[in-house]
Amino acid sequence: MKFEVTVLGSSAALPTGQRNSTAQHVFCQNKHILIDCGEGTQLQMRKYNISFQRLNIILISHLHGDHFFGLVGLISTMMLLGRNSNLTVICPKGLKDIVLMQLEIGYTKLNFDIDFIELEPKTIGCVYEDKSIQITTFPLKHRVPTHGYVIREKEKERSMKKELLNHPQLKIEHIHRLKKGEDIHLEDGSVLLSKEFTDDPAKPKAYAFCSDTAYSEQIVDFVKDVDMLYHEATFTEIHEDLARKTYHSTAKQAATIAKKANVGRLLMGHLSARYTDGKLHEEEAMAIFPNACYVNDGMCLSIE
Amino acid sequence: MKFEVTVLGSSAALPTGQRNSTAQHVFCQNKHILIDCGEGTQLQMRKYNISFQRLNIILISHLHGDHFFGLVGLISTMMLLGRNSNLTVICPKGLKDIVLMQLEIGYTKLNFDIDFIELEPKTIGCVYEDKSIQITTFPLKHRVPTHGYVIREKEKERSMKKELLNHPQLKIEHIHRLKKGEDIHLEDGSVLLSKEFTDDPAKPKAYAFCSDTAYSEQIVDFVKDVDMLYHEATFTEIHEDLARKTYHSTAKQAATIAKKANVGRLLMGHLSARYTDGKLHEEEAMAIFPNACYVNDGMCLSIE
Repeated sequence: MKFEVTVLGSSAALPTGQRNSTAQHVFCQNKHILIDCGEGTQLQMRKYNISFQRLNIILISHLHGDHFFGLVGLISTMMLLGRNSNLTVICPKGLKDIVLMQLEIGYTKLNFDIDFIELEPKTIGCVYEDKSIQITTFPLKHRVPTHGYVIREKEKERSMKKELLNHPQLKIEHIHRLKKGEDIHLEDGSVLLSKEFTDDPAKPKAYAFCSDTAYSEQIVDFVKDVDMLYHEATFTEIHEDLARKTYHSTAKQAATIAKKANVGRLLMGHLSARYTDGKLHEEEAMAIFPNACYVNDGMCLSIE
Repeated sequence: MKFEVTVLGSSAALPTGQRNSTAQHVFCQNKHILIDCGEGTQLQMRKYNISFQRLNIILISHLHGDHFFGLVGLISTMMLLGRNSNLTVICPKGLKDIVLMQLEIGYTKLNFDIDFIELEPKTIGCVYEDKSIQITTFPLKHRVPTHGYVIREKEKERSMKKELLNHPQLKIEHIHRLKKGEDIHLEDGSVLLSKEFTDDPAKPKAYAFCSDTAYSEQIVDFVKDVDMLYHEATFTEIHEDLARKTYHSTAKQAATIAKKANVGRLLMGHLSARYTDGKLHEEEAMAIFPNACYVNDGMCLSIE
């Protein structure tokens, strides 16, 4: 099943004609997840054919405007388009009031429920779980409380070997148990071994998102071995002083985290408007961690 | 001196790929005025080369999101770009708290002052005045308190006739008085008549903005004789029932107001996303008031 990330905004605090404020759409195990929602995200979703109404979960990393000013507009539009299914918003404490206050002042009544899960600063652990995915959060190092997120597929079932489906001793009721890894002991004393009848399941995949953060080795453990890591790289090393001052990272620092965490691939975004593109970021990062790239609005990246 | 309106957003509540949420830039007597500020207005300003930093005054008509969700983002961007000159925001009561709350939660400190002038519902009268322009407000008829605005040039001075500047009896100190309309009585008994030495000043021009409103004849007096009237025309007559239900207008109703108020020209916007363009609106309006057109994002209209 597809696990993919569409970049809806890749700018730093100042949006430009080429880069919108931060937002990403993640499709994982049939769930539609939006991470961050800078101003104009609803228009980017329209542009890149992401359905408003299918969104199940919105994750907000922190309360700097370039990461949440688009949320209330997106919710309004969902309402106007007739949404009636629930929405889960996982966000820093304080955002619920901001959203509701703006809707209430315009006497806007939603025709769907929003389950706001507000996080305390420095929360660590699971914030969402269903039968197929789990979302965990961990703290980043920024000027305001900021939450990183990992979206992880759950361990999948073993899959039946097709060529053994006609095995004379196999009954339909055995299949579910074999897929769970259970061996079947038959009355005649013979055993159907799960390992013989089924293949190992595909390895669960994981995506980690680190929106705005200074270099912090504490991140490494939280994103260990994920298949794809998005880590902000607002600056390159020539502006390392600015990165330190503003609690942002350089491309080199993002790559260092990626290497130490042994991730599959590194995506870099939140590029400062002072760079015309991310080529310098890419060069700098690849010297440390070769499977690195910068992102542009509209890019769709699959986790294989 | 130029008096012109640039349309930054012409959609109704739902922005589309072609039409952004409501916003207009008005340039009048060297003042830069923004009227309404839907989500994404800062990107539209960038697209159409409107300076963020030169904005003097922002007028907000009402607190439905498509007219104000872009304000806090615009203010944040002004701050990030180093603005240090004051800004005046004239708006319905309640907006100041919404803006400040969102800035405070991100610990954003502005390096310029905002003078919020919050209007009570149904306010009528002058809300801004300086030596060259006056802005008045009046109530529209919508689901929430909504303010119409008229931006009016002040009466200008008479201008000296160049060919009489060398008149033997004319002294420099007379010029200012003649331009004010005063006749100069000289010691020898002769009189320099203002009417002979100066030309009539250009007629002051005025622009009126009616954002969201049901048909309301009370508007007529407030926009009487303005050179250009923007009046919403969310619908055409086939959806007159919808217009009534949602407190919006049809193109025919907008044209009726324009005709009764004897305005120079009618602009129509806030077009519902159900219409691919405004051709039907234009036909409908022109049958009643010929000098009518619908607007698109990016249009720049001069008041001659």
